[in-house]
Amino acid sequence: MSAYKMISIPEAQDIVLSHTQPLGAVTVGLAGALGRVLSEDVRAPDSLPPFPASIKDGYAVVAADGCGEFPVIGESRAGQLDDVPVRPGTVAYITTGAPVPPGADAVVQVEDTEALPPGEGEGEGEGEGEGEGGQRRVRIAKAARPGQDIRPVGSDITEGDIVLRAGELVGVAEVGILATVGAVQLRVHATPKVAVLSTGDEVVDPATRPLGPGQIRDANRSMLLAAAARGGAGEVVDLGVARDTPGHLEGCLAAAIDQRVDVLITSGGVSMGDRDLIKPLLQRQGTIHFGRVRMKPGKPLTFATLSLPQQGGRQMLVFGLPGNPVSSFVCFHLVVLPALRKMAGWAHPALRRVAARLTSPLRLDPERPEYHRATLQWSTVPPGTPAAAAAAAEPPPPAAAAPSPAPLAACELWAVSTGNQISSRLLSARSANALLEIPCAEGVLPAGSLVSALLIDDLGCMPVPAGGVAATPGF
Amino acid sequence: MSAYKMISIPEAQDIVLSHTQPLGAVTVGLAGALGRVLSEDVRAPDSLPPFPASIKDGYAVVAADGCGEFPVIGESRAGQLDDVPVRPGTVAYITTGAPVPPGADAVVQVEDTEALPPGEGEGEGEGEGEGEGGQRRVRIAKAARPGQDIRPVGSDITEGDIVLRAGELVGVAEVGILATVGAVQLRVHATPKVAVLSTGDEVVDPATRPLGPGQIRDANRSMLLAAAARGGAGEVVDLGVARDTPGHLEGCLAAAIDQRVDVLITSGGVSMGDRDLIKPLLQRQGTIHFGRVRMKPGKPLTFATLSLPQQGGRQMLVFGLPGNPVSSFVCFHLVVLPALRKMAGWAHPALRRVAARLTSPLRLDPERPEYHRATLQWSTVPPGTPAAAAAAAEPPPPAAAAPSPAPLAACELWAVSTGNQISSRLLSARSANALLEIPCAEGVLPAGSLVSALLIDDLGCMPVPAGGVAATPGF
Ligand SMILES: [Mg+2]
Ligand SMILES: [Mg+2]
Repeated sequence: MSAYKMISIPEAQDIVLSHTQPLGAVTVGLAGALGRVLSEDVRAPDSLPPFPASIKDGYAVVAADGCGEFPVIGESRAGQLDDVPVRPGTVAYITTGAPVPPGADAVVQVEDTEALPPGEGEGEGEGEGEGEGGQRRVRIAKAARPGQDIRPVGSDITEGDIVLRAGELVGVAEVGILATVGAVQLRVHATPKVAVLSTGDEVVDPATRPLGPGQIRDANRSMLLAAAARGGAGEVVDLGVARDTPGHLEGCLAAAIDQRVDVLITSGGVSMGDRDLIKPLLQRQGTIHFGRVRMKPGKPLTFATLSLPQQGGRQMLVFGLPGNPVSSFVCFHLVVLPALRKMAGWAHPALRRVAARLTSPLRLDPERPEYHRATLQWSTVPPGTPAAAAAAAEPPPPAAAAPSPAPLAACELWAVSTGNQISSRLLSARSANALLEIPCAEGVLPAGSLVSALLIDDLGCMPVPAGGVAATPGF
Repeated sequence: MSAYKMISIPEAQDIVLSHTQPLGAVTVGLAGALGRVLSEDVRAPDSLPPFPASIKDGYAVVAADGCGEFPVIGESRAGQLDDVPVRPGTVAYITTGAPVPPGADAVVQVEDTEALPPGEGEGEGEGEGEGEGGQRRVRIAKAARPGQDIRPVGSDITEGDIVLRAGELVGVAEVGILATVGAVQLRVHATPKVAVLSTGDEVVDPATRPLGPGQIRDANRSMLLAAAARGGAGEVVDLGVARDTPGHLEGCLAAAIDQRVDVLITSGGVSMGDRDLIKPLLQRQGTIHFGRVRMKPGKPLTFATLSLPQQGGRQMLVFGLPGNPVSSFVCFHLVVLPALRKMAGWAHPALRRVAARLTSPLRLDPERPEYHRATLQWSTVPPGTPAAAAAAAEPPPPAAAAPSPAPLAACELWAVSTGNQISSRLLSARSANALLEIPCAEGVLPAGSLVSALLIDDLGCMPVPAGGVAATPGF
């Protein structure tokens, strides 16, 4: 009965990404680089180390001199160097990272030396090298190989090397790499400006207490603003709640255009009710690319583009998400997030897929493939689950025993369902870090089944089994 | 030769966390809740749905009426309801999410109905229910079960339920849940204020070009500021670079105290050179809990606490990280990050541990356990690696073939080393999302070995194999 052809989620994702382009480059300072994607390669202007550098605190020596007692004819400290060559039969004090003085070809760490009482100055001292009361001397207890504990010039980075490539995401380490090569102004992809609009006469501000007859609080707007911010939006715009009239809704769309957003995310107003006004509006003002997707939840998911001749012909993407909070949560991750990532320059904007085992049986949906919210954890079979009961032949450990770490080789990703998956129940997204891809079929997937899971949150904060997980044997 | 006992990393982590307390509660608005940890349970003040709500667009009916033609005596739209009871033999139009009118006990979706030409008004119409030109009528084509497509009051959330618990991290879904229950002002743990200080006469600002003799650019400060911000610091303070004099360094420490930071992170100045001034300073002003750790890289890692009677006796944590950028990167993740997380209220602040297979052999270090930087990816044996060569008996696919997705059951986490692990080479942290825990031993760990890996970045942006990963069979 719908005018829109039912398509699959992979088709929908392809369509969205085909209408999405990476945004142009902007310049940011190093302090604003974290999380951005480079739009140009970054090259090193000089070598690192820029000089032969000591790896240890100790003495710069001539390796051929071997063991013995030597006068300390100078010092090379990081940032404060005597410009004194080390001739055979002499050594120089040196600190970690400091330049190895000319003439020296190895470093002996301080642990392999012994400071001696000052000598009388045998003519080797060169002014600054002298301690108070005479020439410093040291016993070298371990002969050095040539090159020992020296980083040659350019051994970490060679002048002209590309240290980071266009398309790389700047994480914590990359910030340090950029600083190392003096890249304090960077070309990165711009990040999208995203507006969020809720719709519906029944939808009221979250602060409303008590609710009037027929009212519900607006969960989607706060959630989608947070999701857009976390998903890499450079700026988010809260457009409030549109009433269920064509005029008010059109005014809200005009506000999004006026504010020159790259992406508008609406929720509600896309199903088959006679006040579901999103699709008719988008049809009038732009092009709807799809309006129905074979998925549970989220079937009425809608995607349109608006060409804006009054703004230089630029294009705005509009995602019409369903009003049920879980549907909008799932649709955001499956289709909006990859688009935001592609705009921000990600080379691989899709959600990452892994495999996980079900801790409990899942009833299949015979009509649509389902994105089942679940919490992944790395563990042996989680205790207290049907999968554990099925696996357990051995008796449980004594109740008082301290939990022991789960052996490494016995662990894998387990998916714990968040419970009742009705699309109004946002608690089914609580703590979810994955969407399980559950086939459309009759019957039940048994506990222990391996399913694919799309990552929607950082596994760095996933639940940990009691006792933790064991480390590499011998570590 | 060091005055400090060598301890293990687990010991060091225990010591740090035993001196770290969760920060007190503060109130934030919903827009500031993302990423925070709740310090109080959140309860629902009312039920959801607050009324029996339709799951579909369609007609509210008396189930016992079954199929047939019925007058449409009113409408219940979300946010706009006729207060008309549905008596046997009548139906009301209803939209998704709208209250089911009194008298009705089921909803028939619009797909299972057919609108009829208006009748003559058989006395059933009640004013607002009448269409222009007479009574609206509809054919119900499919009999309904009682309760069909109705969400009972409180079926998603019951009034008084705890919807989120103290200690939960607020993610995207949780923001939506908070909005749903009207929790627009929240009690969350405060987040730590973190200062970062580099040390060393040789260390110059990243913008310096060209470098003078013996100079290197400061990678650590930018990197650690980024790491602290990403790790949950509420505020970061850039303290610049301390010269290698006791006076200047002491002045920098005083600045950190004056600014009332919770945590000071220094880098450099902790090894055995005679200008390594961090430990002596911390010894004078506070208590050093450890100053040497059996780990590679990062051995001179130092941790101290300062009691500040002039500030009400509050305690400041000081982490003296080694100056080599990789050492400071690794030490930050292993000991500083868990402390920041515990302060911010995380119940399980440690890095998450998983298992991964080595794509290439790793030479073991006979002296210290090593944290080897690696990039984890979910795939079959990555092509072009020694592990792939070892596993490959079958011929490679024809060169021109499009890559096909890796079968789900054949995939696991593979760890690709970032290459030369020398602690000066920050490129060994580029793209790293894990620290592999490599035992201290002689010899080599062969490709394919299973090792434990600590997650230090979001696997949501890990590399994807060519062709991707297959979904659940049948999906
Ligand atoms: Mg609506
Ligand atoms: Mg130093």
